[in-house]
Amino acid sequence: MSAPKKVVLAYSGGLDTSIILKWLQTEYGCEVVTFTADLGQGEELEPAREKAVMLGIRPENIYIEDLREEFVRDFVFPMFRANALYEGQYLLGTSIARPLISKRLVEIAQETGADAVAHGATGKGNDQVRFELAAYALNPDIKVIAPWREWDLTSRTRLIDFAEKNQIPIAKDKRGEAPFSVDANLLHTSSEGKVLEDPAEAAPDYVYQRTTAPEDAPDAAEFIEIGFERGDAVSIDGETLSPASILTRLNELGGKHGIGRLDFVENRFVGMKSRGIYETPGGTVLLEAHRGMEQITLDSGAGHLKDSLMPRYAELIYNGFWFSPEREMLQAAIDHSQQHVTGTVRLKLYKGAATCVGRRSDHSLYSEAHVTFEEDAGAYDQKDAAGFIQLNALRLKLLAARERRLKR
Amino acid sequence: MSAPKKVVLAYSGGLDTSIILKWLQTEYGCEVVTFTADLGQGEELEPAREKAVMLGIRPENIYIEDLREEFVRDFVFPMFRANALYEGQYLLGTSIARPLISKRLVEIAQETGADAVAHGATGKGNDQVRFELAAYALNPDIKVIAPWREWDLTSRTRLIDFAEKNQIPIAKDKRGEAPFSVDANLLHTSSEGKVLEDPAEAAPDYVYQRTTAPEDAPDAAEFIEIGFERGDAVSIDGETLSPASILTRLNELGGKHGIGRLDFVENRFVGMKSRGIYETPGGTVLLEAHRGMEQITLDSGAGHLKDSLMPRYAELIYNGFWFSPEREMLQAAIDHSQQHVTGTVRLKLYKGAATCVGRRSDHSLYSEAHVTFEEDAGAYDQKDAAGFIQLNALRLKLLAARERRLKR
Amino acid sequence: MSAPKKVVLAYSGGLDTSIILKWLQTEYGCEVVTFTADLGQGEELEPAREKAVMLGIRPENIYIEDLREEFVRDFVFPMFRANALYEGQYLLGTSIARPLISKRLVEIAQETGADAVAHGATGKGNDQVRFELAAYALNPDIKVIAPWREWDLTSRTRLIDFAEKNQIPIAKDKRGEAPFSVDANLLHTSSEGKVLEDPAEAAPDYVYQRTTAPEDAPDAAEFIEIGFERGDAVSIDGETLSPASILTRLNELGGKHGIGRLDFVENRFVGMKSRGIYETPGGTVLLEAHRGMEQITLDSGAGHLKDSLMPRYAELIYNGFWFSPEREMLQAAIDHSQQHVTGTVRLKLYKGAATCVGRRSDHSLYSEAHVTFEEDAGAYDQKDAAGFIQLNALRLKLLAARERRLKR
Amino acid sequence: MSAPKKVVLAYSGGLDTSIILKWLQTEYGCEVVTFTADLGQGEELEPAREKAVMLGIRPENIYIEDLREEFVRDFVFPMFRANALYEGQYLLGTSIARPLISKRLVEIAQETGADAVAHGATGKGNDQVRFELAAYALNPDIKVIAPWREWDLTSRTRLIDFAEKNQIPIAKDKRGEAPFSVDANLLHTSSEGKVLEDPAEAAPDYVYQRTTAPEDAPDAAEFIEIGFERGDAVSIDGETLSPASILTRLNELGGKHGIGRLDFVENRFVGMKSRGIYETPGGTVLLEAHRGMEQITLDSGAGHLKDSLMPRYAELIYNGFWFSPEREMLQAAIDHSQQHVTGTVRLKLYKGAATCVGRRSDHSLYSEAHVTFEEDAGAYDQKDAAGFIQLNALRLKLLAARERRLKR
Repeated sequence: MSAPKKVVLAYSGGLDTSIILKWLQTEYGCEVVTFTADLGQGEELEPAREKAVMLGIRPENIYIEDLREEFVRDFVFPMFRANALYEGQYLLGTSIARPLISKRLVEIAQETGADAVAHGATGKGNDQVRFELAAYALNPDIKVIAPWREWDLTSRTRLIDFAEKNQIPIAKDKRGEAPFSVDANLLHTSSEGKVLEDPAEAAPDYVYQRTTAPEDAPDAAEFIEIGFERGDAVSIDGETLSPASILTRLNELGGKHGIGRLDFVENRFVGMKSRGIYETPGGTVLLEAHRGMEQITLDSGAGHLKDSLMPRYAELIYNGFWFSPEREMLQAAIDHSQQHVTGTVRLKLYKGAATCVGRRSDHSLYSEAHVTFEEDAGAYDQKDAAGFIQLNALRLKLLAARERRLKR
Repeated sequence: MSAPKKVVLAYSGGLDTSIILKWLQTEYGCEVVTFTADLGQGEELEPAREKAVMLGIRPENIYIEDLREEFVRDFVFPMFRANALYEGQYLLGTSIARPLISKRLVEIAQETGADAVAHGATGKGNDQVRFELAAYALNPDIKVIAPWREWDLTSRTRLIDFAEKNQIPIAKDKRGEAPFSVDANLLHTSSEGKVLEDPAEAAPDYVYQRTTAPEDAPDAAEFIEIGFERGDAVSIDGETLSPASILTRLNELGGKHGIGRLDFVENRFVGMKSRGIYETPGGTVLLEAHRGMEQITLDSGAGHLKDSLMPRYAELIYNGFWFSPEREMLQAAIDHSQQHVTGTVRLKLYKGAATCVGRRSDHSLYSEAHVTFEEDAGAYDQKDAAGFIQLNALRLKLLAARERRLKR
Repeated sequence: MSAPKKVVLAYSGGLDTSIILKWLQTEYGCEVVTFTADLGQGEELEPAREKAVMLGIRPENIYIEDLREEFVRDFVFPMFRANALYEGQYLLGTSIARPLISKRLVEIAQETGADAVAHGATGKGNDQVRFELAAYALNPDIKVIAPWREWDLTSRTRLIDFAEKNQIPIAKDKRGEAPFSVDANLLHTSSEGKVLEDPAEAAPDYVYQRTTAPEDAPDAAEFIEIGFERGDAVSIDGETLSPASILTRLNELGGKHGIGRLDFVENRFVGMKSRGIYETPGGTVLLEAHRGMEQITLDSGAGHLKDSLMPRYAELIYNGFWFSPEREMLQAAIDHSQQHVTGTVRLKLYKGAATCVGRRSDHSLYSEAHVTFEEDAGAYDQKDAAGFIQLNALRLKLLAARERRLKR
Repeated sequence: MSAPKKVVLAYSGGLDTSIILKWLQTEYGCEVVTFTADLGQGEELEPAREKAVMLGIRPENIYIEDLREEFVRDFVFPMFRANALYEGQYLLGTSIARPLISKRLVEIAQETGADAVAHGATGKGNDQVRFELAAYALNPDIKVIAPWREWDLTSRTRLIDFAEKNQIPIAKDKRGEAPFSVDANLLHTSSEGKVLEDPAEAAPDYVYQRTTAPEDAPDAAEFIEIGFERGDAVSIDGETLSPASILTRLNELGGKHGIGRLDFVENRFVGMKSRGIYETPGGTVLLEAHRGMEQITLDSGAGHLKDSLMPRYAELIYNGFWFSPEREMLQAAIDHSQQHVTGTVRLKLYKGAATCVGRRSDHSLYSEAHVTFEEDAGAYDQKDAAGFIQLNALRLKLLAARERRLKR
């Protein structure tokens, strides 16, 4: 790879990406464009601008954007249409944010004439893969710089040294090593590393940042109604809201009731197991709601197909293949199934759990006429079941007859 | 079908199966053998014997058996190795009990020279399918009688009339219609019908029979440890227990903490949607524990394959194909994956939720050496990730290059 | 089911459907509308009109339509985008024609105010299922009459008697029983039954009706080029042709060279195995061509996903679920993959085989620069493979290390 | 990676691996053990011994082994139980040989105290991945040396120079570049590269080495019978033969009749497409035979599950994951399905095609009683089909009713 001339850096304004910024300038002597996005991580963005200026970035090279609506509308919601869970339990909060960041990095590179992008993900994790696969899928000629895989700043001491030598301000609490590593966006907060590295040890309480402990959550349940249209949440308690507003509100509600905590050991795409603590309050509520909505509006053939495709769909997102033909193929199938996933779901929120307790829809396929224990006025002829069973049994009978025949 | 001469009836001792018993005697004039099994439904079995005697069944034709250990060991546990959930949420508590009952019906028919078996499932539900597919798979020549699909006792009044005419004792609370229908065994209690038929209406509190309401559960969390060997639970808090004893104990613990309630609308195999309330306290705890155990002991390749096979496996059990070559094939694959699912999981039980908070195992694949944020002493070379990403990206780059080429 | 008043009958003009026509008139006393479609079965349609008139059908109740273009464009081609093969070998020639016939039956019922449709498929086969599932999926209130499941004309003698009593003309060669049963359309001809019922016995030569025996095919190979656009064949040897014209031409070519014969034992949806002889000359050529086209234009991620979905897609069509949400979901995924399946394939036709010998496309993903054994000018860095392998191997190493550890 | 001390080299005796041998000695100064296996590639092995001696390998460090029986019995046959085809067409002839070679390399390393293994696969292909994943799966601490990824002998000229400088004898025809690259074993011969690199150009005749051109094959068909036991071929025309003998004989028969040629563009695991010419005469015959055997002995539920698992199974083998938990899980499922795949298949071999024309088995599930067009003596009640269809149609009717309701 020839040396880059101009690099767009995914810049948080924090110590680590500030070090990367400076390192790019000194190591490659290249012009740096910073990109700071609000994906709902809950931090002010303006300090990032000030810091970028202070580190010598020209104003026109500082990009700060609020991507929350795009994030929820074009990434989170499509994923939730699939009821996606990685390895049965993880709601993919980190995974789903990466492709959007890469998309903007590549677009800004195009706009600013940059030939490279850079990110602050380490060489052990999944995020490097997600950032880079997305970038390459959108621009096959882009260069991607991953300083953590390249540089020799491999200990906290060296990083601090580099920062001091380069006049990068260091917040007091950043001198020492953080007790764990955090990633956050509108969908979730994840924590991993250090104090969490022994999967036999319970996570300390202070790790949880976004959800009340169930023990401290209100003693009374709260009931809410979520409205859906074509598979996406569109309202809460009758109030129509934008995608990001819905997720924000569900985060407040879920967080208050201690919903969405997950202590999880997962398999990284790069081959090792890692342990993370995930907090996905709004997403956990949303999944329960979406499932409840599908229960009455989704056909069983469609639903079972969706269920069988989901693990692969989730794996693709986890592994960083959002921008791939096969993810898009699966999305096309999933989206097709959502045309009638429209209606309202009633949920109970209480001490760590969101529970669907009612669903109603003009698109419902639930037929009380068919299922009733009462007289059904001819909706269903029970004698049909005899033929249904006989033909389903036919091959089993032939198998059993073979067993008998061969035993004789 | 020629008329049966001797029928083995799945007999609970209750009003409905007593009516069936008498109806078989009068309608077909055939000898009846009763089979009453303890699958953990929580009812005394001896009254069934007395009632059978009273209805004229000869003592040698009365079979009463405790199948709890066989049920958990050979049916429930193999199913839990798969983390089986039907339609993403249902633990299959009713489905998994049916094949065992059919197996014994067919075996008793063989022992007693009966040419038919009979069950009390209606023509609208899944259970008729499960009973009959299992029976035919085990004996292709067996006759199956499903009175609910045949007779004209299609209202409560007619049933009561028939009972009175035939001197079948009727408990006072059975004269009117039950407000909902119940099935129970060691794994779960299900309730459906009548007051539950509107999926928009929350289930009344009195429907729940086996689990404390989360609101009434203890205010303090309880922690337990479950030991696993090759995918099956073998101990609780260090005490080795039999399969049925483990599930019994987990039911107590889960029930006490309000764990395992599910309000669910599902797709029946016979084509309609139905709404059920399921209580699976021990099973819900067990699923969380098994998943926690797999997190550190199961390889990702094996785990992802299992995840992708699970929906089909669950559907097979739900639809009644336990005794089918394809269920056995999937079981062979799943069982192969469980060789190292051995160790101990620590769980928190609190107000409706069982949460894994720790796992340890001599068979662990979790490698702190690889995952650590600290120096890893060469366990993992971060530079390898660059090549890994490049080759994974290659096809995506070629796709992106095509897009560009064609746009020009 | 209340008695039908007006029935649309799928009418071939042959003896059997003429008997059905008369039986409907006499048994149900209902008005009959005949529908005769040209799906490329190679028979004149006008005799069907004359015969219908002769059997008392009013002219406005006689529908005769050429559906060949719709058949290929909207049914055959979408299916071939999937490379669909049932049980690994069968090109689904009968299965794919049924939903179109049902669609027109239901539409004509709507146009003519008929409340029922009728078909001539027997109660043992798949076609009854396909006809009826499609009909119900398009009109939930339609009645479907399947005379073969209802009447008592269960032997050839009775049928002939009924025909004679009702002045239905009987061609001489129809008095006796046919040595086997045939179904034909533009995609294939199938033969089954009677002389073919022993799967150990080779099919007699006279069964084959549409393809030259390979032994009698030309001794010189013939080469053709098929052009594709977005997954569908659009031209042969540079000449743009309509869908039906392409399939017709490929049938001539394939038939001449003895291509597309299949001697097959399959599993029917209704539970038994049956043996059929299929001749699908054009379809066999088309499948080979489409695969060749995909080889250079389809991404591996998309292709592998397609491959994994195909068996289920084929099963759905075979079982009669063309008009189902899950078939449409799969179609949406498959169609999405075909955007770039555009280009030209060169095929060799010789003595029973169609073989792709060349493919070219502006949409090709094949990169000689990457794959070459020669210098590749930096297109591919072989050292990347080391990292790729290391990370793919990581979990396998951890597994092997566990084995060692536990053995010690 | 620290320098290896003793290396086991997969040694063919040819120029390239002789250069590698010398390079290992000079570059790493390590002791070399050579391993030459007969997998049916059709070359004498003793010259490899002489050459190894000549290059200074000590006699006790020269391993020459006939692995043909193990290859077919433990690798080829298990794979054929799955009817494995990569990307719908490729019989995996190269892929399946690699894990066995790696297995022996690792075992010999263990026996000789070597700490490394080496192979002659390039950095662009799949074989490096297959060799190395297998090696690491069997010994997590083994070092693997892949000289083609490391050295600077990147042109033919440099290789020849190195050979001359190191007194490695060079056959005259090896001085120039081969017009294409060949791999062969008992299952297949593959050719790729150079003259084959343009996928639009037909492969020249001289590329085919193992199969007669169909045009030159006998003008009369030949019929053979293959006997199976539990999914594996055990006899030809009644003569019981060992696995390798069977494949050898089928290769002769298939080759003579021009069977098993494939001109193919495939997707490599490392990300690019490549074009190969494969000749798999015996394997192609075997696949057709195995499918024919399964047609009458395999249950549809088992068969459809197998079909759906096959693409993933084939991909695992292609990608080098033979020794992985998920391949073993799939194998367990597949093997379970083969218990009754026992009987005899009759095949026609003619001008490029093997065609099943008859199958018979004591384990047959084909029931003429059920399928017959004649009177079936009550084996099957056609009326059952009505109920079967009604219940399969129920959800489709509910869907159609929804459409209507919403349109109003």
